[in-house]
Amino acid sequence: MTPIDETIAAIRPIDAQAMAEARAHQDRLTKPRGSLGVLEDVAVRLAGIAAVCPPPLPTPAALAIFAADHGVHARGVSPWPQEVTAQMVANFTVGGAVANAFAAQVGATVTVVDVGVAVDLPPAPGLISHKVAYGTADLSRGPAMTAEQTRQALAAGAGVARGLVAAGHRCLITGDMGIANTTASAALICAFTGRDAESVTGRGTGIDDATHRHKIEVVRQALPANGISPAGAVPAGPEEALRVLAAVGGLEHAAIAGFVLGAAAERVPVILDGVIAGSAALAAAALAPDVTGYCVAGHRSAEPGHAAALAHLGLRPLVDLELRLGEGTGGLLAQPLVAAAARVMHEVATFDAAGVAEQKA
Amino acid sequence: MTPIDETIAAIRPIDAQAMAEARAHQDRLTKPRGSLGVLEDVAVRLAGIAAVCPPPLPTPAALAIFAADHGVHARGVSPWPQEVTAQMVANFTVGGAVANAFAAQVGATVTVVDVGVAVDLPPAPGLISHKVAYGTADLSRGPAMTAEQTRQALAAGAGVARGLVAAGHRCLITGDMGIANTTASAALICAFTGRDAESVTGRGTGIDDATHRHKIEVVRQALPANGISPAGAVPAGPEEALRVLAAVGGLEHAAIAGFVLGAAAERVPVILDGVIAGSAALAAAALAPDVTGYCVAGHRSAEPGHAAALAHLGLRPLVDLELRLGEGTGGLLAQPLVAAAARVMHEVATFDAAGVAEQKA
Repeated sequence: MTPIDETIAAIRPIDAQAMAEARAHQDRLTKPRGSLGVLEDVAVRLAGIAAVCPPPLPTPAALAIFAADHGVHARGVSPWPQEVTAQMVANFTVGGAVANAFAAQVGATVTVVDVGVAVDLPPAPGLISHKVAYGTADLSRGPAMTAEQTRQALAAGAGVARGLVAAGHRCLITGDMGIANTTASAALICAFTGRDAESVTGRGTGIDDATHRHKIEVVRQALPANGISPAGAVPAGPEEALRVLAAVGGLEHAAIAGFVLGAAAERVPVILDGVIAGSAALAAAALAPDVTGYCVAGHRSAEPGHAAALAHLGLRPLVDLELRLGEGTGGLLAQPLVAAAARVMHEVATFDAAGVAEQKA
Repeated sequence: MTPIDETIAAIRPIDAQAMAEARAHQDRLTKPRGSLGVLEDVAVRLAGIAAVCPPPLPTPAALAIFAADHGVHARGVSPWPQEVTAQMVANFTVGGAVANAFAAQVGATVTVVDVGVAVDLPPAPGLISHKVAYGTADLSRGPAMTAEQTRQALAAGAGVARGLVAAGHRCLITGDMGIANTTASAALICAFTGRDAESVTGRGTGIDDATHRHKIEVVRQALPANGISPAGAVPAGPEEALRVLAAVGGLEHAAIAGFVLGAAAERVPVILDGVIAGSAALAAAALAPDVTGYCVAGHRSAEPGHAAALAHLGLRPLVDLELRLGEGTGGLLAQPLVAAAARVMHEVATFDAAGVAEQKA
């Protein structure tokens, strides 16, 4: 078995008995039943993930930002120069990006992983090199990655996840950096959900109408160029999932898919950031369907494809504030909400213990 | 001048120049313009509140839970016995409630203020007594409070806010406890927004259809019983606002209105919790229109009247997770989001400083 096959083989469904115990415990706490809304579901899910009730607190948390470049950038789908990927990696390592500020706010560590930046990066604190290639090929004209590159990036992501858990982290958060990576995300979402390019291709971090129309056309070309079935069909089985990921994904998408699989193998919750993570999670779920039980949708980004990906995964986002930045920023904002849901299970008194009268039936 | 008049007189509009500086600074940071969505508006607002850019971090934060009982409870509008108000106050003071768990998660202090619980409460750590009355009169048959009681509760809330700021807190969060207080909230929202009882009266912490219909009827009766104009009219001016608050509010509503006014007088942001705070903020805004600039809507609760109150105030909620608990829980969950927005202004590098290329025009 390859490393990623071993990770996939280790994934079990989330635990039904722990979830039933968590639901029963929620109903004994000094609050009206169901009054914590979506956070009650989060707490129950955390119990299922850890297979224990009450579930462990999701701290300390770790953000991993996977960085890579994209051959499709040459098609003019982004207003940002490709050099910005490497420049932002440098910014992350000196603590100057929004992801660093948000990580400091929620007490998360930041690890930056080069899985495919187009240039060699100087060593820096918190930067790990798992460079698989100097960027992908142009996904609109043929496969972005080889099968071997895809497996390497998946294994790199899984290895980072398992290493962070071994170091004591109890909540993983996905992050990404890669100029043009919303184009690959849109193509993945088309392929895995059966939606058409127009409905899932957004403006990324900000493009004008003409570039947006061009970007939709590039996404539309990518599917037949890679022998992927037209809108409405979705890949069946892990072999085809791997082929689609290689064809229209990015190295950071593959690494994030591996990261999600690694978290599930370790029974630790993974908070998904935005559309890059959502599209990567579609690939992970196609490789190992039980993985979605371990995913918490951190937020819903402004990208239209993200809502489509979350709907396909059956995940409800916790934060919805029109963010369109990436880097893991939306996932980081959700971490205190997830932690609050878990804390309730440990710290809140029951009606009996507190001497509080219950609601009349 | 009475104490509350002094607080109102101290309130100034939020600062336009600091807000303009904050907007300009946001656009120089290493992120696509506007990519932090709603949080960019929050950061700009914080600068306006403090009249300085970058705005101070909203930490440490303080939750104040105002507790009181309601004469309208006798009409059978809640499935919970009135004794639960006092029992939950005891639960707060020993740290056993959800608000305590959430406060611990976000690092906020918890102060419980008795402004009108129906029984005498034993002294407890973190409990302040500003008892104005042993609960209100039945708002569906005449005024819930006298003008003097209303002023006392307003002053108590303002005094708590100003005391917490004097003690070093830089973010205030509203909390409430009072069995039947969503009935008073619905009546206040009817009176201040001109909406009808049916559209703003919800199920509180959980009632059946028959009780819900009865509760709507009780809210509907409250307005003519107090000489308040029918749906569509809204009170004009501070005198009439005070009369409406006394007529259909609760002691904790008046205290929270005072707390909001006190925060504004001290130029500190106040995060509003749910429908109780939203209805109290309507009263505060009618007393001093500039106060809304100092309010951040922490969340949108499941109560229909809450959305109506927020729309009237022009506030967009940060968290939307179907919570219907009160206590300040929704406000507490929003505090890390507000803090994250502020941190960006202090810690994120500019394009120039980080050597990151900008987006092509």
